[in-house]
Amino acid sequence: MKLQLCSWQEVESYLERHRGIIVPIGSTEQHGPNGLVGTDALCPEVIAHGAGEREGIMVAPTLSIGMAQHHLSFPGSMTLRPRTLIAVVYDVVQSLTRHGFSHIYFLNGHGGNINTVQAAFAEYYADYSLHNAPDCEAPGHLKLGNWFAGQRVKALSAELFGDREGSHATCSEVSLTYYAYPEAIKQVKMSPEIAPNGSFRDAVDFRRRFPDGRMGSDPSLATPEKGKQLFEAGIEDLLEDYQAFLAA
Amino acid sequence: MKLQLCSWQEVESYLERHRGIIVPIGSTEQHGPNGLVGTDALCPEVIAHGAGEREGIMVAPTLSIGMAQHHLSFPGSMTLRPRTLIAVVYDVVQSLTRHGFSHIYFLNGHGGNINTVQAAFAEYYADYSLHNAPDCEAPGHLKLGNWFAGQRVKALSAELFGDREGSHATCSEVSLTYYAYPEAIKQVKMSPEIAPNGSFRDAVDFRRRFPDGRMGSDPSLATPEKGKQLFEAGIEDLLEDYQAFLAA
Amino acid sequence: MKLQLCSWQEVESYLERHRGIIVPIGSTEQHGPNGLVGTDALCPEVIAHGAGEREGIMVAPTLSIGMAQHHLSFPGSMTLRPRTLIAVVYDVVQSLTRHGFSHIYFLNGHGGNINTVQAAFAEYYADYSLHNAPDCEAPGHLKLGNWFAGQRVKALSAELFGDREGSHATCSEVSLTYYAYPEAIKQVKMSPEIAPNGSFRDAVDFRRRFPDGRMGSDPSLATPEKGKQLFEAGIEDLLEDYQAFLAA
Amino acid sequence: MKLQLCSWQEVESYLERHRGIIVPIGSTEQHGPNGLVGTDALCPEVIAHGAGEREGIMVAPTLSIGMAQHHLSFPGSMTLRPRTLIAVVYDVVQSLTRHGFSHIYFLNGHGGNINTVQAAFAEYYADYSLHNAPDCEAPGHLKLGNWFAGQRVKALSAELFGDREGSHATCSEVSLTYYAYPEAIKQVKMSPEIAPNGSFRDAVDFRRRFPDGRMGSDPSLATPEKGKQLFEAGIEDLLEDYQAFLAA
Amino acid sequence: MKLQLCSWQEVESYLERHRGIIVPIGSTEQHGPNGLVGTDALCPEVIAHGAGEREGIMVAPTLSIGMAQHHLSFPGSMTLRPRTLIAVVYDVVQSLTRHGFSHIYFLNGHGGNINTVQAAFAEYYADYSLHNAPDCEAPGHLKLGNWFAGQRVKALSAELFGDREGSHATCSEVSLTYYAYPEAIKQVKMSPEIAPNGSFRDAVDFRRRFPDGRMGSDPSLATPEKGKQLFEAGIEDLLEDYQAFLAA
Amino acid sequence: MKLQLCSWQEVESYLERHRGIIVPIGSTEQHGPNGLVGTDALCPEVIAHGAGEREGIMVAPTLSIGMAQHHLSFPGSMTLRPRTLIAVVYDVVQSLTRHGFSHIYFLNGHGGNINTVQAAFAEYYADYSLHNAPDCEAPGHLKLGNWFAGQRVKALSAELFGDREGSHATCSEVSLTYYAYPEAIKQVKMSPEIAPNGSFRDAVDFRRRFPDGRMGSDPSLATPEKGKQLFEAGIEDLLEDYQAFLAA
Repeated sequence: MKLQLCSWQEVESYLERHRGIIVPIGSTEQHGPNGLVGTDALCPEVIAHGAGEREGIMVAPTLSIGMAQHHLSFPGSMTLRPRTLIAVVYDVVQSLTRHGFSHIYFLNGHGGNINTVQAAFAEYYADYSLHNAPDCEAPGHLKLGNWFAGQRVKALSAELFGDREGSHATCSEVSLTYYAYPEAIKQVKMSPEIAPNGSFRDAVDFRRRFPDGRMGSDPSLATPEKGKQLFEAGIEDLLEDYQAFLAA
Repeated sequence: MKLQLCSWQEVESYLERHRGIIVPIGSTEQHGPNGLVGTDALCPEVIAHGAGEREGIMVAPTLSIGMAQHHLSFPGSMTLRPRTLIAVVYDVVQSLTRHGFSHIYFLNGHGGNINTVQAAFAEYYADYSLHNAPDCEAPGHLKLGNWFAGQRVKALSAELFGDREGSHATCSEVSLTYYAYPEAIKQVKMSPEIAPNGSFRDAVDFRRRFPDGRMGSDPSLATPEKGKQLFEAGIEDLLEDYQAFLAA
Repeated sequence: MKLQLCSWQEVESYLERHRGIIVPIGSTEQHGPNGLVGTDALCPEVIAHGAGEREGIMVAPTLSIGMAQHHLSFPGSMTLRPRTLIAVVYDVVQSLTRHGFSHIYFLNGHGGNINTVQAAFAEYYADYSLHNAPDCEAPGHLKLGNWFAGQRVKALSAELFGDREGSHATCSEVSLTYYAYPEAIKQVKMSPEIAPNGSFRDAVDFRRRFPDGRMGSDPSLATPEKGKQLFEAGIEDLLEDYQAFLAA
Repeated sequence: MKLQLCSWQEVESYLERHRGIIVPIGSTEQHGPNGLVGTDALCPEVIAHGAGEREGIMVAPTLSIGMAQHHLSFPGSMTLRPRTLIAVVYDVVQSLTRHGFSHIYFLNGHGGNINTVQAAFAEYYADYSLHNAPDCEAPGHLKLGNWFAGQRVKALSAELFGDREGSHATCSEVSLTYYAYPEAIKQVKMSPEIAPNGSFRDAVDFRRRFPDGRMGSDPSLATPEKGKQLFEAGIEDLLEDYQAFLAA
Repeated sequence: MKLQLCSWQEVESYLERHRGIIVPIGSTEQHGPNGLVGTDALCPEVIAHGAGEREGIMVAPTLSIGMAQHHLSFPGSMTLRPRTLIAVVYDVVQSLTRHGFSHIYFLNGHGGNINTVQAAFAEYYADYSLHNAPDCEAPGHLKLGNWFAGQRVKALSAELFGDREGSHATCSEVSLTYYAYPEAIKQVKMSPEIAPNGSFRDAVDFRRRFPDGRMGSDPSLATPEKGKQLFEAGIEDLLEDYQAFLAA
Repeated sequence: MKLQLCSWQEVESYLERHRGIIVPIGSTEQHGPNGLVGTDALCPEVIAHGAGEREGIMVAPTLSIGMAQHHLSFPGSMTLRPRTLIAVVYDVVQSLTRHGFSHIYFLNGHGGNINTVQAAFAEYYADYSLHNAPDCEAPGHLKLGNWFAGQRVKALSAELFGDREGSHATCSEVSLTYYAYPEAIKQVKMSPEIAPNGSFRDAVDFRRRFPDGRMGSDPSLATPEKGKQLFEAGIEDLLEDYQAFLAA
């Protein structure tokens, strides 16, 4: 169920039987020569929608812009500052717990979001932990899951792409977007075949080290067919992790 | 052109010939018994995408959560605090001007966003206006346009719905989402036929005054066919206003 | 009644019979060659004081510095950033509601304040709308009224100045300050007679478009006599709107 | 010269010959049974205006609301949070230095403002001190002077009121406001004659310790005649300190 | 070299030959029945000081209070909110780069700090990445290293404590503090021998799950002798990682 | 008792019999040619630890970095912006009051901290003073004491150093650090013997006025023996003031 396509009464009914919700969160940033700027938002979105439809789980609108300061030297990349993203996640959590959502699962598509979103969770909890009333407890249970780090997805990536998967503009994420948006498939010759790997600091430093925007990957291996397999694996990983979260 | 579906090199090429971009901005909030929670984000999104495809204008990802504090008594509504939304718009503008986008047109679907987004524009300009170097000028030209306030759309709304259009959960916006998402059409009997109108303060006050979430409207008149007409009118209004913005 | 001239016991007595207060809010910024830098603060202040004396309404001290980033290229203009002004209005509202003032009417003299003050109201309401306790309601009713937009004032402006009224450094506001501060009347020859109109962005852009600081006006028409008429009209508009606010 | 009564060209002319400005800053808070809520703003305002007229010094609009959290248990008291006041002072300084004002003298009327305003000055300087360019220097020289702490004023207070002067709702400040606003003189019998003295924390604590709002004073001694003497002494103190500031 | 024990001229000399500095960062929070509240700050401090003395590396004062909201239900625990800690790290980095320190290595002792400190690094970099001048690069290289995660330390912990090491109030960290502060060794009988493991949310939730404050550990195994071994291993791990950081 | 060396149960026991705590707060900044960068943090720390041991008072970890923007032109100086330090003090207070500490005594070693820490106290109190519930009172009593301003310390400084004590890099503080850290004693010839005195603004201004970092002092007079005397005097001053604080 997509929250955006419900009426408020439909949300009200949902809350009578279920208290969990999935919030896709991603980023808008370059993904190398043949990857989509929206990759990190589109991937968790399509998996969340797939899982949501299959099991009747509510899915909130995607937070499409994340923390991607290091990609800003490539046209089209967008970022929220960490402090901004913390405020966004904080307000999203408060909005949802206001209605009685008790378990909020952020399905993430961007490694660069992890630290900031976890900091936002702590910011939210801290309001309760620092409260004078010593038994004051936060109504929301929060979890960040990364679609690309589930057990099935990782196994499949390894099987399909081996050491050409890489860590940014990966074969897997490009495949998944090609499956979901076949109209956006791009044929680009890349050199070197496998991009360099390593660490980085700010945007200028990132582009110096990774001139075409890939990190460690050979996304010329990406195909929509492989994307479909990853889509299925991602949904299963998500459903398993989400159920465990509800039960924790 | 959807930014999310481009590679960074495609964005780079676009910027060589064009410096404008459209950013749909909306809200996630109740829209009465037969309207979608996502109405205010979906409407500017579909119009922006329509205009973007027709004229090759870049469209950024939709900012789907806006300032909707007054809707929080209805399940499913989400809000950013004004300070948060200001920070988001500020970072979005900085990200885009970093790449050379000089004209950023926010196509808005939610009346409640207007004040805050305009305040965010002023926050951005103020950094330049207060700069010690007295000839320091902001690289970005910013504009907020409301899809529902264009000349063609308003004329069409008046013709189609007269005084039953209303001001929240309007016949027009419900129609437009029905056209775009026919799978989400809802048949709900509403009473009274025309909702009350008036002002409001916070969430509790809003719900007391507008118990089913509509303001002044009779959205039982909404149909996908009328939505299609509004979609066309909205695209024409947007293209005209966007061109005027570029020329200003 | 001016709050500043009361003792706290007099305020306490007032609160036993009345819960409303007027807060004049303006700006400190250039107003063209013959207008006063303080125009936008002085106008709502004199009208509020006039109305307050006539009907025994409490008037808070004037917030004299508003959001005027676009005027900063003219010597003497001052601004608060939008985030700062939001914090100011927020604290003012919290201070007044702490004492039991339930209806706070901001009488505004500066168009540039409107968005930010409305955003501040939403920031205040949001604290209550997002509260976990679902029936939590804000104790304060907030309203922003513009003295220059009242029915009587607008009719009188039209009658007195027609299309030479303009939109900044208007004939009306200059007249009103001339009435209130005759010692500050300035005789300046302006060219062109009627200033250009249009939109603007930051301070450098504003000054390029409006070199002497006026927008659309011919304030050489301003006189203290006309100011007196506007003063009377402004008081009547305010009293009417304030009573309606209390009753809403 | 009152900034509010100048045109921008008059400010421009002033800046060609002089770079200093006085900003009265006060507070809006209870001042005991016969003192005015506006005392702390009105006192520096009338002295600044007096000095400004005498020597042709520009005087900015008064910042009437200061940091007075501890007075909030008395009706009519208003406060800005310290963080808000820091932001206000910061923006005021940036606005004025933008035009070339190099020496900004805040004439203060409220002891509770001192720490926060000094912290605001440091916040402003810190932007320059932390700048990567190691020779980056702040364009503004900032000073906070307290009208009640000048040499002449203190001597006169001691002479006029001895140990009945007190530390809040003092005989001196009440006298000064009675001189400036004779229409607001209040005859109130106070008991005990001399109020208790001591320290305080928050608003509830303050009111418990100082039930009628005075601290250590017997303001029944206040008269407009003594206020006139203090007015003259205050102007002389200010002019001396301001000249020393310009020369430093 | 301890920065606190240098004169500024000694720092100046150091900077002529070396551009790196180590900043110990920890937390102040309960560490179970026999662990010290200061464990997470003391551990990186003693290792940093050991390494600094051995190789002449400058060591900044320890940031002793970190992000520990989840420990607040145990007396003595202290926390900075994530937003506060981000601001602290940001200011520390700006202070040090101002002097020419180019490589700032934060040696961390608290898992709960990791996300927030990394978010702070991104906040710092973002200022440069979002700068209009497209080749603007941050002067500081930032790294967070965890003393407990170095290769030698982990091998030694495994060897000494096996699966009784745990994840909070670990045998290793308690041992290290016992070595450094033998006067604070505590003999406490704990039950169960091995504490439970798992995840947590806020302070109330944490204490419910981990009643005596340990997670997965049996710190009765801690001894100062083992602490000495860990101290040596920690220094070697740090020096290796620090050198790699300088060379990167 | 050092909080860092306690277990949480030891803190719990302490709170059953005592509700006060001392928080040393200082700064990390140049202290002239023979003074230590850590002087302002080390001095209150050693005195607090001395007093804490003598009378069994809990001492929190030292806040070693304060507000020292004006020292940033000297290598090794570090600062928190005032807004950051306010947030730190605020979170520290909230953490400690959460556990039932009711009297929090900040023992300060740096004049530059005073305004900002007092502003932080007001920020904390303001949350309670502005609370809608009119009898809401802050649980924490907060006090800032300066070790260098106690009666015994001032008398001893005057006796030992007369007018060569100075106001920054004073003979007293250098002596105290020499007593506590004899390994860091520095022999430096200074010229002039007595440093200039005066005011300052930002870092560049400070260094221009005080080229070797001292203000008004001749710290060549510092010795560890005098430091020992000051240490004893400081402990006595602190214990007296702390007891008075508890009793207030």
